Amino acid sequence: MMTGGLTKEEESAGSSLFSGLKDENATDIPIKWDEVADVVIIGSGFAGLAAAIEAKRAGSSVIVIEKRKVRGGNSMISGGVVAAAGSPLQKRKGVKDSPELLLHDMLKAGLYLNYPDLVRIVAEKSNETVQWTINYLGVKYDDTLTQWGGHSVPRSYTTYNKSGAAIIHRQLAKLKNLGVEVKTKRLLTKFIRYNDDRVKGIEIRDGYMFPNENSGTVRHIKARKAVVLTTGGFGNDVLFRTTQDPRLNEDTDSTNQPGATAEALIEAMNIGAMPVHLSLIQLGPWACPDEKGFGIGPWFAQTVAFQYGVLINPKTGKRFMNEMSDRKIRTDTIIETGHICIGIADAISAKIRSDFMPRLLKRGIVKKFETLEDLANSYGIPFGALKETIDEYNSYILDREDKEFGKYIPKDAEKLTHAPFYAIRVWPKVHHTMGGVQINTKAQVIGLDHRPIKGLYAAGEVVGGVHGACRLGSCAIVDCLIFGRIAGKHAAIEPKIP
Amino acid sequence: MMTGGLTKEEESAGSSLFSGLKDENATDIPIKWDEVADVVIIGSGFAGLAAAIEAKRAGSSVIVIEKRKVRGGNSMISGGVVAAAGSPLQKRKGVKDSPELLLHDMLKAGLYLNYPDLVRIVAEKSNETVQWTINYLGVKYDDTLTQWGGHSVPRSYTTYNKSGAAIIHRQLAKLKNLGVEVKTKRLLTKFIRYNDDRVKGIEIRDGYMFPNENSGTVRHIKARKAVVLTTGGFGNDVLFRTTQDPRLNEDTDSTNQPGATAEALIEAMNIGAMPVHLSLIQLGPWACPDEKGFGIGPWFAQTVAFQYGVLINPKTGKRFMNEMSDRKIRTDTIIETGHICIGIADAISAKIRSDFMPRLLKRGIVKKFETLEDLANSYGIPFGALKETIDEYNSYILDREDKEFGKYIPKDAEKLTHAPFYAIRVWPKVHHTMGGVQINTKAQVIGLDHRPIKGLYAAGEVVGGVHGACRLGSCAIVDCLIFGRIAGKHAAIEPKIP
Repeated sequence: MMTGGLTKEEESAGSSLFSGLKDENATDIPIKWDEVADVVIIGSGFAGLAAAIEAKRAGSSVIVIEKRKVRGGNSMISGGVVAAAGSPLQKRKGVKDSPELLLHDMLKAGLYLNYPDLVRIVAEKSNETVQWTINYLGVKYDDTLTQWGGHSVPRSYTTYNKSGAAIIHRQLAKLKNLGVEVKTKRLLTKFIRYNDDRVKGIEIRDGYMFPNENSGTVRHIKARKAVVLTTGGFGNDVLFRTTQDPRLNEDTDSTNQPGATAEALIEAMNIGAMPVHLSLIQLGPWACPDEKGFGIGPWFAQTVAFQYGVLINPKTGKRFMNEMSDRKIRTDTIIETGHICIGIADAISAKIRSDFMPRLLKRGIVKKFETLEDLANSYGIPFGALKETIDEYNSYILDREDKEFGKYIPKDAEKLTHAPFYAIRVWPKVHHTMGGVQINTKAQVIGLDHRPIKGLYAAGEVVGGVHGACRLGSCAIVDCLIFGRIAGKHAAIEPKIP
Repeated sequence: MMTGGLTKEEESAGSSLFSGLKDENATDIPIKWDEVADVVIIGSGFAGLAAAIEAKRAGSSVIVIEKRKVRGGNSMISGGVVAAAGSPLQKRKGVKDSPELLLHDMLKAGLYLNYPDLVRIVAEKSNETVQWTINYLGVKYDDTLTQWGGHSVPRSYTTYNKSGAAIIHRQLAKLKNLGVEVKTKRLLTKFIRYNDDRVKGIEIRDGYMFPNENSGTVRHIKARKAVVLTTGGFGNDVLFRTTQDPRLNEDTDSTNQPGATAEALIEAMNIGAMPVHLSLIQLGPWACPDEKGFGIGPWFAQTVAFQYGVLINPKTGKRFMNEMSDRKIRTDTIIETGHICIGIADAISAKIRSDFMPRLLKRGIVKKFETLEDLANSYGIPFGALKETIDEYNSYILDREDKEFGKYIPKDAEKLTHAPFYAIRVWPKVHHTMGGVQINTKAQVIGLDHRPIKGLYAAGEVVGGVHGACRLGSCAIVDCLIFGRIAGKHAAIEPKIP
């Protein structure tokens, strides 16, 4: 069976309906393994490190590889908010919640495209997982409970430093204690499989310098038990994301780190992993094109201009949507205008974010104008139309009713008449990719033949199906940690190959 | 290069980033070819037959295979409406239209997820293609011009018998004249590729009896120039469609023929075709679960109950949406109720479809009740709540304004007070799968490495990206014919392999 040539089955071509891809690497190419471990994990974000901890604790030897120089991937720049349904913090604050309610919220936001069995696991394990980060990892959280868009109740913890790094650092510390090293600058280039289709290891480029795909040296790592894929989303892979959403070309920025690319996902598809929901890509509508990544613009765009002011199409000088509707609606509507839109507020409303205004102005993200006419001229907005729009909107504020788009007018909103006026340029940025490989409740990757691919697990943003059409804020970290842990535990109990 | 063993490149494993799948069948398995043609076409719907006509006319020998006993696939049961922007019929009827306007309509309905270059081809070639069916194929159309949801103007031709069969029969007649045979009961089971990745033929099961995948005899057909994949959508493949939309399980019917399954699409993915928009699946919200397929229920549901009456959630006795909003919104909202909903009309409104009512009642699709209370009891609707809903709705009719959901109230609508009352059970059915393999403007299939897969073309519903999130009525046939013809023409000018 393990000769260099063709097997009997291969010579009698075409015996199976789904024989196409599965034969890939079916011949046992005589590989000189450079390293060996029971469980080989690709990626060092929340999911990968959680898998590593559980696999190691279950007695497996573990190798974790990371393609970039820095460990932690996109998790390092996450906001560090974590949903927990039925938490002690909620009890202390008098908030009634349940896993059922979180399940409902996630399915509703996901437009019911989510896999219910996977969502249920997230909902039911959310609280125990946050408690695990506190009690086992030693992560510190604020005492505040926050409520994010689409959640029925406040249920999110926030790390003490408002960053996912607070969790990553504790995961890395724990792995150091357990004797597991995360090896950086190692790019996955290929999965290597057995005659029986089992993934038995990976090919990598060691010493890889992102994004030079010819850098580093080819090496092979054998996985005695399993490979776990936790390489995150593809928000920064322009070529791949435009195949799924042609609007998201190089003109569209991303809030993600540059390494959020698709090559590992593509390799999984190359060995027949079933892709799920690839075209469901979330953009943040509150982003500013005058800074890279997430930046600080959203603090003005979302909490000042959208909530108390207006968003204007510079071509028409008019509003064109409820500035507080959901991420998907806002994103689609802004993109449809075809113009970078202008968020506008006045002196009174800008006070809401007086903590951020000096920095926003200093960096030129927000600009200040003595008159509305100056503002209009600066952005090429027809002033007459803009004046009309603002007058109209001011009448809505008086009546506490947005007669055009039905936006909720906050009780403390005042007419936009107080100079100076402030403006921000607004264009959505790619934020989260809901699609990826299909997994089952054991985190096994499912193939095009609807059966698990032996020896391959996946968790985190590289997986599709957990969030459906729309990932709720604060639900990514629990997703990554929960399925990372499940993948690590199940990988550790796979039978060893010789 | 064409030995039975491994090539040099394969032995030096892992030289390329995207080496995974492309090596599949890289070794030249010694196949005894049973048949040979320049161009081998899989599928006998609009697209496949159009490709066959063009390839043959360009001087290539052609083999067309069809897995079912009957030729024509799902095209045979299509409604036979064909969009043409800027047609002679429009000129005669005084309708101003342009390819730009059709492009705009398709992109808008597609939520701008469509590939603009592919949509532009459909828009620009729509009229010449309909004229080609008239002048070259001899298809007969009605003299009426119809306007379908999402189209800005009336622009659709309808075949004389209101069926796609009118076109298929003419295509088959033309092919017979050209000397091309369509061989039925032949299932594609595998693509066969060359060392240089070129698709050089296919493996089939000859004598296949759908859906028995072990029926028939394995045979191999060599394609000297190219293989063209035109196998249609996967609307009836429950396992595959639920991977992309878990709501669409076996409880959900489809308007498609039973052969609308995914195995050929999966085989294309197995050799590394890039999947696009797989999760974008269109359902018809006007379908009745008490009959199979498209049926006749839509004539009552859509044009009587939705337009003049109400759709009720039987659990609550209440309306829950604008019954005339777009297909996607209606479908999602009905499914969200979790109940088969009840469309209700009265004696006056039912007169609108007096042509269909006798058949609808005879087949039990629509049921008649002497009182609203009888109707409520029959479906387990709380009568008090239903009475309240109808009274409320009747007040909207008086005011010509749906104060709850903003439905347009037709001028001839009357209050729903006239016995007998009529009801239909409503549950969406899968109608069109927008996703499939990626193609370029030459109809070449694109691989996971973003490059064309040599020797492989595709057209029709098996292709993703033309319609984005929502395929407009009457845009499927032109899509199939246009890209089928493009595929056939380009396949015919491929260099011949020995």
